[in-house]
Amino acid sequence: MDKLTELAYALDTFYFLLSGALVMWMAAGFAMLEAGLVRAKNTTEILTKNVALFAVACIMYMLMGYNIMYPSDGNGIIPAIDLSFMFGGDHSAEKVLASNGETYYSGMSDFFFQVVFVATAMSIVSGAVAERMKLWAFLLFAVVMTGFIYPVQGYWKWGGGFLEGLGFNDFAGSGVVHLCGASAALAGVLLLGPRKGKYGKDGSINAIPGANMPLAALGTFILWLGWFGFNGGSELKISDVGEANAVAAVFVNTNMAAAGGLTAALITARLLFGKADLTMALNGALAGLVAITAEPLTPIPLAATLIGAVGGLIVVFAIITLDKLRIDDPVGAISVHGVVGMWGLLAVPITNSEASIGAQLIGLGTILSWVFVLSFITWLLIKVIMGIRVSEEEEWEGVDIGECGLEAYPEFVGAKGSAT
Amino acid sequence: MDKLTELAYALDTFYFLLSGALVMWMAAGFAMLEAGLVRAKNTTEILTKNVALFAVACIMYMLMGYNIMYPSDGNGIIPAIDLSFMFGGDHSAEKVLASNGETYYSGMSDFFFQVVFVATAMSIVSGAVAERMKLWAFLLFAVVMTGFIYPVQGYWKWGGGFLEGLGFNDFAGSGVVHLCGASAALAGVLLLGPRKGKYGKDGSINAIPGANMPLAALGTFILWLGWFGFNGGSELKISDVGEANAVAAVFVNTNMAAAGGLTAALITARLLFGKADLTMALNGALAGLVAITAEPLTPIPLAATLIGAVGGLIVVFAIITLDKLRIDDPVGAISVHGVVGMWGLLAVPITNSEASIGAQLIGLGTILSWVFVLSFITWLLIKVIMGIRVSEEEEWEGVDIGECGLEAYPEFVGAKGSAT
Amino acid sequence: MDKLTELAYALDTFYFLLSGALVMWMAAGFAMLEAGLVRAKNTTEILTKNVALFAVACIMYMLMGYNIMYPSDGNGIIPAIDLSFMFGGDHSAEKVLASNGETYYSGMSDFFFQVVFVATAMSIVSGAVAERMKLWAFLLFAVVMTGFIYPVQGYWKWGGGFLEGLGFNDFAGSGVVHLCGASAALAGVLLLGPRKGKYGKDGSINAIPGANMPLAALGTFILWLGWFGFNGGSELKISDVGEANAVAAVFVNTNMAAAGGLTAALITARLLFGKADLTMALNGALAGLVAITAEPLTPIPLAATLIGAVGGLIVVFAIITLDKLRIDDPVGAISVHGVVGMWGLLAVPITNSEASIGAQLIGLGTILSWVFVLSFITWLLIKVIMGIRVSEEEEWEGVDIGECGLEAYPEFVGAKGSAT
Repeated sequence: MDKLTELAYALDTFYFLLSGALVMWMAAGFAMLEAGLVRAKNTTEILTKNVALFAVACIMYMLMGYNIMYPSDGNGIIPAIDLSFMFGGDHSAEKVLASNGETYYSGMSDFFFQVVFVATAMSIVSGAVAERMKLWAFLLFAVVMTGFIYPVQGYWKWGGGFLEGLGFNDFAGSGVVHLCGASAALAGVLLLGPRKGKYGKDGSINAIPGANMPLAALGTFILWLGWFGFNGGSELKISDVGEANAVAAVFVNTNMAAAGGLTAALITARLLFGKADLTMALNGALAGLVAITAEPLTPIPLAATLIGAVGGLIVVFAIITLDKLRIDDPVGAISVHGVVGMWGLLAVPITNSEASIGAQLIGLGTILSWVFVLSFITWLLIKVIMGIRVSEEEEWEGVDIGECGLEAYPEFVGAKGSAT
Repeated sequence: MDKLTELAYALDTFYFLLSGALVMWMAAGFAMLEAGLVRAKNTTEILTKNVALFAVACIMYMLMGYNIMYPSDGNGIIPAIDLSFMFGGDHSAEKVLASNGETYYSGMSDFFFQVVFVATAMSIVSGAVAERMKLWAFLLFAVVMTGFIYPVQGYWKWGGGFLEGLGFNDFAGSGVVHLCGASAALAGVLLLGPRKGKYGKDGSINAIPGANMPLAALGTFILWLGWFGFNGGSELKISDVGEANAVAAVFVNTNMAAAGGLTAALITARLLFGKADLTMALNGALAGLVAITAEPLTPIPLAATLIGAVGGLIVVFAIITLDKLRIDDPVGAISVHGVVGMWGLLAVPITNSEASIGAQLIGLGTILSWVFVLSFITWLLIKVIMGIRVSEEEEWEGVDIGECGLEAYPEFVGAKGSAT
Repeated sequence: MDKLTELAYALDTFYFLLSGALVMWMAAGFAMLEAGLVRAKNTTEILTKNVALFAVACIMYMLMGYNIMYPSDGNGIIPAIDLSFMFGGDHSAEKVLASNGETYYSGMSDFFFQVVFVATAMSIVSGAVAERMKLWAFLLFAVVMTGFIYPVQGYWKWGGGFLEGLGFNDFAGSGVVHLCGASAALAGVLLLGPRKGKYGKDGSINAIPGANMPLAALGTFILWLGWFGFNGGSELKISDVGEANAVAAVFVNTNMAAAGGLTAALITARLLFGKADLTMALNGALAGLVAITAEPLTPIPLAATLIGAVGGLIVVFAIITLDKLRIDDPVGAISVHGVVGMWGLLAVPITNSEASIGAQLIGLGTILSWVFVLSFITWLLIKVIMGIRVSEEEEWEGVDIGECGLEAYPEFVGAKGSAT
């Protein structure tokens, strides 16, 4: 291989690794966002879930998931079984030679970029089931989700399976990652039920404010930053003029969509509630990001802003609607990642002439039903075996003491069970 | 174009995008710094301002600002009117071909790098007017500032206008960004007046401690990190030995100046107050960073440290002086970015023999007067139309409830209006 | 020099600078981790120590340390004296020409990458001596540590000294950085004694919970992210296929080891204490990272996970054991960086056939004894001159007021001296 090709390979690998590091950083974003939006008494536990799910996702994806998602072979629906990665080391140098320059980045960098995506999908779940789910039940679900449920639908699209063949478009994963995570979350929430005190017997809906708004804002900024790796890295290559321009356009559109989503949600909340609701603004930014993720390359900057803005509009109404349906999602994860993830998928044909609404609907339906059904079964099995919900006393006292034996803010909160 | 040139283009674009991502991250730094330095009852609101101003800056700069700052044409003072960017997409590939290799990075990456700078300038303002300004008045000002006031003076220097022609040196924006933001802040603060209880009728000055020091420290670390993109990216190119060495020198000098500023402010505060004042140390680090921003390339490491140290010394006395003048700036933004920004501009000729003190003074005076006058008029118009200051009751109760309808720490603070 | 070599030089320099920026970010990680694990009344002071030690490390390493660690000459034990760096500027372009392409990155980028490592070593110390050590005594120690003690042992290994000659393997510094920091911390802790109330006269050990768990989790995530620069950058080169693959493998293994460490510590804590102890999980992740740091390149992913997992297991028992020995380390730094640092060094021969257990033991013993003895003498001198421990009253009241004159959370904590 000539030195120029080697250098391009090095640049593409470096770009991939840094993109992956930015996506890894999103795990901290979810942790802070969720820690900010739950009550003080449930904060240590949500932090523990967030750090532990990341570790579980890495281990399960190394052991099984990566092989399932990117198999050596498969029929488009069922991937070939192959557990070689964990012993793998990196054979990229040989691959590159064998491929005559077709392979343009390190196989290890590919794993690194993919493994942080599965962690992202799993992070979405933890927020929705917060404040009432058993920690070890959650981690058991994480094992199945990251080792099996996520990788299979990932294979169908990004691993070259039947959704890819059908022309389903999902650039960086409005469907494969965000809708996937939200579908698993929805299944869990339905089996789990709402938090005590959230919905009154008289039909009232009680707001349960989060304990720490700076953490929620910090988490959103982290996610915004990490998304440049999430979407920017999903171009997969940067080493020529066309690819470099594409990555740059993805950065700009990702940023504009977040700005559009934030602005739309902030104004919508102002009109509906009379106040500049910070949590809606934050969810609006995230909604903008989720919305553009299915196609951050083809829109002009104005279109990206508008696609994000529609996401920000949708998320406000989705959050209100789910509350009316008594689907209790403390951080709004199902609305942000699920409802807006669908919008993202369906918006692709607006700017990408190669996409069709039909293929998008098939992809959407496939991911939603596969993940929802498999997750529902998994949650149900866990429920039968060990239970998924903490006791009423523990919920009242806070899961921090019961599950982790540690208060998050032992000196700040006067009385346990404060703010109910 | 040959493959080697393409690869250099890709590397420069990637360097630009990552630098921009680091600068975007500074928005989180300002948000955390300001959230840490205000009282608990005003925290949600300052967070909302920070996330919203970033979104506003992105949208306004896309719609107008970028075209004004980097116009297709202009006479050096008035740029040509051109609103094409929002529809733009990226025509860099053609530009590169047409320019015979002169254009060495993606146009979209240029926009991305520039848009996060305007957000930085606007972030400076929010801290100075904290705890008493109406949220929507502030955002209206942000529209004018990021869409018009900032871009025009940016055009004068970086867009090839008359300040560039005069030999005014401002590598990464001690003037164009930091003094600019501080001048707008000063105009706002003068019209707004000090917080209730800050200055007693007997001439006393009352310290109003910030609610959350870890956030302030975190914000400073974020800004320090982001500054490597801010200054490091402003070299604009990295793809040959000379440019790579230049970027590396900028990283080192940026870091040394921050270290010098922190150390000088910490020791100065110790000598003046007898204590190791954390907030002064943090402002010292930021002052060092602002000081080196006008010329982070030419100093040797020792000189960079000293330029930063003088900045750290200045900032302590500037904060004390502004308080004596009863100019109430809760986070010290005018001192850090304005007073030290001027020091940065005037320090350029010390190490850069191509700079002259005359050109630096003209640039300094132009930016200061343009931004101050235009901002004053804008703030005044907003004041007349909708008012800029919250009611006395709302200020007492905290702007979080009044403006956002959400407390930042609902479980931590016993009584509303605590700590005055 | 041809353009292709120039471009490779630029890529390697950029890779080095970004790796360094990630390591710089670790300073924020240590600051947040330590701020989260101390009590509210000692938070401002630990933050001040963390920002100030970073500044001190940068200045001392510029003035002396870098020249000592990478001298122009030396006999393998004593480096030549040379204080040129501070006046240096960057002569890399000439070096590159003179070296006929052997020098492949900017000298300034090398300094930047190295200076953030010394700050990391110093950050380890601040946690162990938290809540009772005088601030200025600590900073005086930092001057000696970063200007002299660290650089000398760094020279022995990375500067080409006798440990390098003996075949001692330490890829990114399980020994040179982590064991080094922990050894200095141990010397300080032994001279300082435990916190009041930590160990009862009846032999009881009292848990003293940290005030802010989200900060501790955030700090761990920051360190995890920064470690990709720490280990990934220590390959020193990325610009060809072999090097790019190596960097990618280092990223994957670093991540897997953290995941393994976290999981092992979480499960171990569950079995021992019956709870999912968040602080143990966080220390487990850090232990995994420390363990893999001596050799993140040669293991297959499964082996990296297991090396990290053993680190996670060790750290739980190390923390318990140190407590039984009445060595009071509020954040577990000696266990994480010292005990597990030794494990990391000794684990190298398992996967790297070029390493020998003998050379590893010599390196381990040399670093431990040099740093411990020199640190002990330095701490002792400081103790004699100005004292190292705050008064009993100040410790009771909290060092924030005494040392910094600022409370960290003035509105959150009702009574001073809460939580003992």
